[in-house]
Amino acid sequence: MSEDTKHRIIEAGAELVHRQGFNNTGLKDILKAAGVPKGSFYFYFDNKEAFGIEMVHYFRDRFRAGTASIINDKALTPLERITGLFAHFKAYYEMHGYTRGCPIGNLAQEMGDLSAPFRAALHEALDGMVDVFEGLIVQAQEAGESPKDLDAREAATFVVEACHGAFIRMKVVKNAEPLNICHKFIIEILLK
Amino acid sequence: MSEDTKHRIIEAGAELVHRQGFNNTGLKDILKAAGVPKGSFYFYFDNKEAFGIEMVHYFRDRFRAGTASIINDKALTPLERITGLFAHFKAYYEMHGYTRGCPIGNLAQEMGDLSAPFRAALHEALDGMVDVFEGLIVQAQEAGESPKDLDAREAATFVVEACHGAFIRMKVVKNAEPLNICHKFIIEILLK
Repeated sequence: MSEDTKHRIIEAGAELVHRQGFNNTGLKDILKAAGVPKGSFYFYFDNKEAFGIEMVHYFRDRFRAGTASIINDKALTPLERITGLFAHFKAYYEMHGYTRGCPIGNLAQEMGDLSAPFRAALHEALDGMVDVFEGLIVQAQEAGESPKDLDAREAATFVVEACHGAFIRMKVVKNAEPLNICHKFIIEILLK
Repeated sequence: MSEDTKHRIIEAGAELVHRQGFNNTGLKDILKAAGVPKGSFYFYFDNKEAFGIEMVHYFRDRFRAGTASIINDKALTPLERITGLFAHFKAYYEMHGYTRGCPIGNLAQEMGDLSAPFRAALHEALDGMVDVFEGLIVQAQEAGESPKDLDAREAATFVVEACHGAFIRMKVVKNAEPLNICHKFIIEILLK
């Protein structure tokens, strides 16, 4: 058992699942993409669901790692950092031709009703995203950029929801407009 | 070939797909639920994708039929009608224990990248939802309820996105909070 092989399975699986969905991706394809012999999956995971939970943690950690430098950039004001997150999202979707969506949002849609352990892992990952925006909104309020009477937790929840809706809409329209509109209303109307 | 049988297949399939996803639902299960012999599917549909497109049209028409009386209720102001739509959504999800999500939004997430004909049908259905909110926002502006400088099409796009994000989040948290927050910010901040 090597942690390296396990990580390779998660990484290859995450790429396939992000592109085509969890139920639509077979273990065989994941192992083939990872270059791991078919029989060895069960060395690393009890079943496909257990693999899926670890994949959610992987997506959560990747989001954290990919956004930390923006979230903590003290050269920017809190609202500028929120705009930085939107710019980060826009660059990602542009690079991928407005396909894929958010892997956590996708799995929330696909698996939220079908598996309680999946739901718990997704709940934790989504709460982590809300935490990020809540932290920035509180800082924006302290800096006098955002109105103090806004409930920061609720506003952050709304931002995460609206972004997930925009990510899905981009899958259909195949352009940046949904996310641009979302960014505009969040920054110009909600948070100012 | 009976239109009645075809409709029964679409209705039974729509119920299953709404609960568990398109790729996760086999033709066998759909036909079993519809009480139709296995071999007869291809009398009615070229393939599962063609069935899926007709199912999107079915969901679109069901949304229209289910919301028309609220949208056209002249006893209510335009913003009260938007609140009426939120109340309609809330009652639906409460009845289903915050499962299911929006069938159109689910399919946009699941199939938007995987099938061009699906994408086209979903595009049209989502645009129809934006049309509904745009119409009500324009009326709210004419009635002096909403600011005139708001771009009604963009605001409507944002409302539809934010709702879809909330529908997905409810699948994970299993309570009404995401939609309540969405409703509050849309009505109290965006549209007033």
